[in-house]
Amino acid sequence: MTANPLPKTPVTLLGLGAMGTALARTWLAAGHPLTVWNRTAARAGALTADGATAATTAAEAVAASPLVIVCLLDDASVEAALDATDLTGKDVVNLTTTTPAQARARAAWAEARGARYLDGGIMAVPPMIGVPEAGGYVFYSGARDLFDAHAATLAVPAATRYVGTDPGHAALHDVALLSAMYGMFAGAAHAFALIRKEDIDPATLAPLLTEWLTAMAAPHLTQTADQLNSGDYTTNVVSNLGMQTAGTPTFLATAADQGVSPELLTPYFALMRRRLTEGDPSEDLTGVVDLLLR
Amino acid sequence: MTANPLPKTPVTLLGLGAMGTALARTWLAAGHPLTVWNRTAARAGALTADGATAATTAAEAVAASPLVIVCLLDDASVEAALDATDLTGKDVVNLTTTTPAQARARAAWAEARGARYLDGGIMAVPPMIGVPEAGGYVFYSGARDLFDAHAATLAVPAATRYVGTDPGHAALHDVALLSAMYGMFAGAAHAFALIRKEDIDPATLAPLLTEWLTAMAAPHLTQTADQLNSGDYTTNVVSNLGMQTAGTPTFLATAADQGVSPELLTPYFALMRRRLTEGDPSEDLTGVVDLLLR
Ligand SMILES: NC(=O)c1ccc[n+]([C@@H]2O[C@H](COP(=O)([O-])OP(=O)(O)OC[C@H]3O[C@@H](n4cnc5c(N)ncnc54)[C@H](OP(=O)(O)O)[C@@H]3O)[C@@H](O)[C@H]2O)c1
Ligand SMILES: NC(=O)c1ccc[n+]([C@@H]2O[C@H](COP(=O)([O-])OP(=O)(O)OC[C@H]3O[C@@H](n4cnc5c(N)ncnc54)[C@H](OP(=O)(O)O)[C@@H]3O)[C@@H](O)[C@H]2O)c1
Repeated sequence: MTANPLPKTPVTLLGLGAMGTALARTWLAAGHPLTVWNRTAARAGALTADGATAATTAAEAVAASPLVIVCLLDDASVEAALDATDLTGKDVVNLTTTTPAQARARAAWAEARGARYLDGGIMAVPPMIGVPEAGGYVFYSGARDLFDAHAATLAVPAATRYVGTDPGHAALHDVALLSAMYGMFAGAAHAFALIRKEDIDPATLAPLLTEWLTAMAAPHLTQTADQLNSGDYTTNVVSNLGMQTAGTPTFLATAADQGVSPELLTPYFALMRRRLTEGDPSEDLTGVVDLLLR
Repeated sequence: MTANPLPKTPVTLLGLGAMGTALARTWLAAGHPLTVWNRTAARAGALTADGATAATTAAEAVAASPLVIVCLLDDASVEAALDATDLTGKDVVNLTTTTPAQARARAAWAEARGARYLDGGIMAVPPMIGVPEAGGYVFYSGARDLFDAHAATLAVPAATRYVGTDPGHAALHDVALLSAMYGMFAGAAHAFALIRKEDIDPATLAPLLTEWLTAMAAPHLTQTADQLNSGDYTTNVVSNLGMQTAGTPTFLATAADQGVSPELLTPYFALMRRRLTEGDPSEDLTGVVDLLLR
């Protein structure tokens, strides 16, 4: 005889796009009673065949479960979908990508309608959902009691990281990480452009770039954080701002020689130079962060 | 009785700045007869106390050994130092940071004076020299026979990576990796700026950024290289150019809300948008590379 398994929390999911559908499959597979709704009803077909209940309206879907998860296109579509629903006593978890300000406003809006609200930022693409070894996860922020009450259910599609009670902080972490990633992509695009007309295989450069960026990431990020916290930007500096700024003409001349536009590098170099003019050549690069704030 | 160790190759080193001095110490420690020269003679003092021979002129230093390693400020200082020396029959290894074009011209210049020439790009800071576990290394390109003849000697200060007979390719790899790194640093600066006025500890964000950038680097770089090689930018795309471009307003709005200048993100986003206008929304981001070339 095996012990009776605990009954799984019923889940309502609004939104069956690429991401919503991937999420839905994991709750179904884990045995959660699942009610789904999608503006275009046809997209629920395959899920109902696998045991989900399709609601005809968002209001009906919200009424079906105490836990309501929303994964729609954007904040406007969340308002459109939830507007005619009764949120009283509901636990709303919004996994739609928004700005931090939109998340905060949506939290206040939901709470004014009697719901508890948790916001999420998904750090994964649909093929990583339900595949723990793929390393994806979801940032959560907002109502701590809601997060704690549903921690196990929320952990079904991907690992969870709770980052505080401010409902805007999940989105802010999401945007911060993706913004940094686009910076790295920009640097990589410049690097590939430099060798584009040379007899160098991009597939040989790729692992060298990966290794270098990976090796530089942790020391740079840790040191920048420490310096921002201490306010002293001159701690443990091996290649200082003065030396690094002096090196930038080599990068720009190489780009020019290779016929590559420097537009992805020049804004950062300009900030290095500005900080050098205003500050101390023995600093690290951390002062650039302050120049971005107005 | 122990076997007689092979005699170590005598080395001449021109340049005793921070990097030259770090290199010198490793050859001395490994038992190589070492002749050094520096424009400002006083900098040789500590090394001569440890067994190096200080030459009074660069010409005398070059005459002392078949292998001449140069680590000076820039290409102009290399010309200034070597101009009055006899390079006939010498093996010249130039570790000075230059552009690829300068390296090619310096190779031709040295070969016209009867030398073999190898160029190097040092992917390390001085504290990493002689510390293999620090992971630093040196790119080499140019005369293959010279590299092979001195592989063991060159491997004393740091690991070596030979990247081809074109004497400009060591510098090009060096510049490509550092350019990509500055892109990553730019993205990181933007990310830290976003949380600067929030109750989020930069030291908490740093490991999240490190993990995310590290996770994204290899797949992005590998895929970009594969797509550049195949010419098909639509292979295995999960988040396509259309979707990613549609997401950029969230990043810009968040920056505006946080009082952060978008100047480090906008050039890349502009190229994404341009590629989307000219191309196919189902592409990956690889097309940005081509837009940089003129
Ligand atoms: N896909 C990813 O890689 C990824 C990664 C991280 C985060 N996210 C986030 O996850 C969320 C969903 O993404 P997705 O990939 O599933 O997008 P998607 O495939 O484009 O699906 C969009 C969903 O939103 C619905 N929708 C759009 N406008 C609506 C409106 N006015 N009213 C009601 N419903 C509306 C669509 O319904 P119809 O079917 O009726 O059009 C569909 O269910 C987005 O916020 C996205 O940023 C996605
Ligand atoms: N330090 C690093 O983190 C690092 C990392 C990678 C690559 N590198 C490269 O390694 C090379 C040396 O760097 P470093 O850190 O040793 O620089 P450094 O400490 O500034 O030393 C510069 C050296 O160049 C000499 N020099 C300058 N102008 C000269 C001239 N006109 N004629 C003759 N000698 C001249 C200096 O001699 P005096 O002593 O007489 O001034 C000194 O020996 C550079 O190309 C640099 O880019 C450095």
